[in-house]
Amino acid sequence: MTIKREKPREKFGYDPQKVIKKLEGIGYQILEAVKQGKNPHIDVPMRGISNVYYDEATKTIQMGDKISRRYFLHVAHAKKFMQTVLIAAYIKRLVGEMKHASLREAYYANKHSVGGTKENTFEDQIESNAIIEDLERTLGVLREEMHITADRRGYIYGDITIKDGEDEFNTSKLGMGGWAVPGTVEHLKFTQINVDYALVVETAAMADRLIEEKFPKKENALIIATQGQASRGVRRLIHRLHYEEGLPIIVFTDGDPYGWYIYSTIKQGSINLAYLSDKLATPEAKFVGMTMDDIERYGLQRVTEKLKGIPPNKKGGPTGDYKRILEEMEYPWFKNREWQRQLKMAIKLGVRIEQQALAHKSLEFVAKKYLPEKIANEELLP
Amino acid sequence: MTIKREKPREKFGYDPQKVIKKLEGIGYQILEAVKQGKNPHIDVPMRGISNVYYDEATKTIQMGDKISRRYFLHVAHAKKFMQTVLIAAYIKRLVGEMKHASLREAYYANKHSVGGTKENTFEDQIESNAIIEDLERTLGVLREEMHITADRRGYIYGDITIKDGEDEFNTSKLGMGGWAVPGTVEHLKFTQINVDYALVVETAAMADRLIEEKFPKKENALIIATQGQASRGVRRLIHRLHYEEGLPIIVFTDGDPYGWYIYSTIKQGSINLAYLSDKLATPEAKFVGMTMDDIERYGLQRVTEKLKGIPPNKKGGPTGDYKRILEEMEYPWFKNREWQRQLKMAIKLGVRIEQQALAHKSLEFVAKKYLPEKIANEELLP
Repeated sequence: MTIKREKPREKFGYDPQKVIKKLEGIGYQILEAVKQGKNPHIDVPMRGISNVYYDEATKTIQMGDKISRRYFLHVAHAKKFMQTVLIAAYIKRLVGEMKHASLREAYYANKHSVGGTKENTFEDQIESNAIIEDLERTLGVLREEMHITADRRGYIYGDITIKDGEDEFNTSKLGMGGWAVPGTVEHLKFTQINVDYALVVETAAMADRLIEEKFPKKENALIIATQGQASRGVRRLIHRLHYEEGLPIIVFTDGDPYGWYIYSTIKQGSINLAYLSDKLATPEAKFVGMTMDDIERYGLQRVTEKLKGIPPNKKGGPTGDYKRILEEMEYPWFKNREWQRQLKMAIKLGVRIEQQALAHKSLEFVAKKYLPEKIANEELLP
Repeated sequence: MTIKREKPREKFGYDPQKVIKKLEGIGYQILEAVKQGKNPHIDVPMRGISNVYYDEATKTIQMGDKISRRYFLHVAHAKKFMQTVLIAAYIKRLVGEMKHASLREAYYANKHSVGGTKENTFEDQIESNAIIEDLERTLGVLREEMHITADRRGYIYGDITIKDGEDEFNTSKLGMGGWAVPGTVEHLKFTQINVDYALVVETAAMADRLIEEKFPKKENALIIATQGQASRGVRRLIHRLHYEEGLPIIVFTDGDPYGWYIYSTIKQGSINLAYLSDKLATPEAKFVGMTMDDIERYGLQRVTEKLKGIPPNKKGGPTGDYKRILEEMEYPWFKNREWQRQLKMAIKLGVRIEQQALAHKSLEFVAKKYLPEKIANEELLP
């Protein structure tokens, strides 16, 4: 049995004109209210945990339908209303001019005094960030689609050809470096895909190990190095490669609460960003390791590390890693036999196991035995 | 006046055979002592502040000549002696097989029990890291030359063509992504350089701004995004581009103690790594901004941020940013009129200014006015 590319289920959907139309919609609605002598308002879906739920059908975190109405003529709303209109106008200009701005640039660009007063439009970036999130929720578009870029991190390596503007390149022909994933990946076209699946790797050191061992070529895999928690650009790239290109996604992290959290975010999105699940999450992603079973199976007992914090059955516990593992046991997508077993075992053994601990066997081990064997036998966690 | 590429002053010098010879040298010396019935030893240059000095001539931090002798038959030395021999043998194998390992892999690969005892060769990665640093100092080679890779971070974009193994590519033809700089850049060949200088940029958001504004093409510049403190790979790349390819290096960071520290490290190396100054530092790098003068000159008063901590003239001060600035004022390479003026002004104004604050003028401002003007007029700090 080998993992193979599946049939695509989504089509590339980014249309800047649609985003502009949606932004204009807000403007027209306000204008209409003014003309009719009414108090203009904007309806913004509520943020926070009270307005999210786990949807069993799509297996993602989704936003509920609670709305908060923001009025122009309201002493508690007026500033936010003004800020929303300012940022919406700014974004419309960005998208119209095919320009991108970072969250920080958007803040600085819109920070100024309000004519004739000592008031500033924004006092802190927290304010403009919140408005941008509001617009994402209100319009149902990613901030990347509004040309607001997230911090970038991560790179890819493997036999796929990408068209980015006028440039077209194969990400397996860039030496040991690989292609740096930009903050926004909406505009990318995948002109050729000669891999069977994508392997998402937590650490750069492990990704580089696999590149050096020629794993991508031998196993027909695309390597996606997240370099820690996956950036939004990388998560969106993973989503697009899975749904638009049919690439199975297999995640490879350290065997510890942080690694499992990275997997969890790729798979399900975070609660903060629930409203983006449809575009950022990849619930069908699978997990290859590191697992607690690997320790015995591959004789890694000498190269585990102790979990940090106090175990649940000790005085003062649980804290640290133990606390995080117990929290992860409550995630709906970890509520299955396989994951519960892993997480319980971690608490019982009191250890973590890193990807790079596999070097204890030999440098080649991970690329020649560990991954090919587990992936071919589909020994993957859900 | 425009900044132009200079005449190269170093030739590409990496020779794996030389590294192997040096490692074998240690082995032969030990073997010789054993044959002669003597107690084998290894001489390791001492680490730490007591064995470094600032060399006015080369303008870099250099290692002194204090030596610490490590004996095999010595109860306090035996373990370190064994560890040194283990790691040296491991590295010889790596280099011989043209393989690379991360610091962490080197640790795991060499961690095992000592035959017939309950002792482990290494208990913690700190021990193996220290041995690798010892070998760098002892042999006078970078750990990258010994195929031990550092954590990677950073990317480049601009009209240069790189040969990395069998691949050859131009880093201005990779869409908005750019080329991800690997941990080791020793093996890279620069087959074509069509830029006049390299602009080293602290934040990815600013590098991406410049790419979007087509700054690299218009100004004939290579963009090197460090994404925070420059990784060793990026620092080595900067060094090579300057000395081997004659590219002037211009650094662009936030106007705050952390940004100036990033500049300082690129320029002079850190005290920890003094023994690497000759290969990692680029003392001739210059600094374009952000400076304290920029605030008034470009009308950025509304978009500064307050320094953190307590000023030196207030009770309990100096702490935080103020303390760091005062420390930086003591760096030998900042002991000049221009830098003392900047750093004093920062303390006096009590503010910092970010690269992205330039977006307050307009998104294009940094690419169309700020940088071209300052660079053309050579308004650069030493």
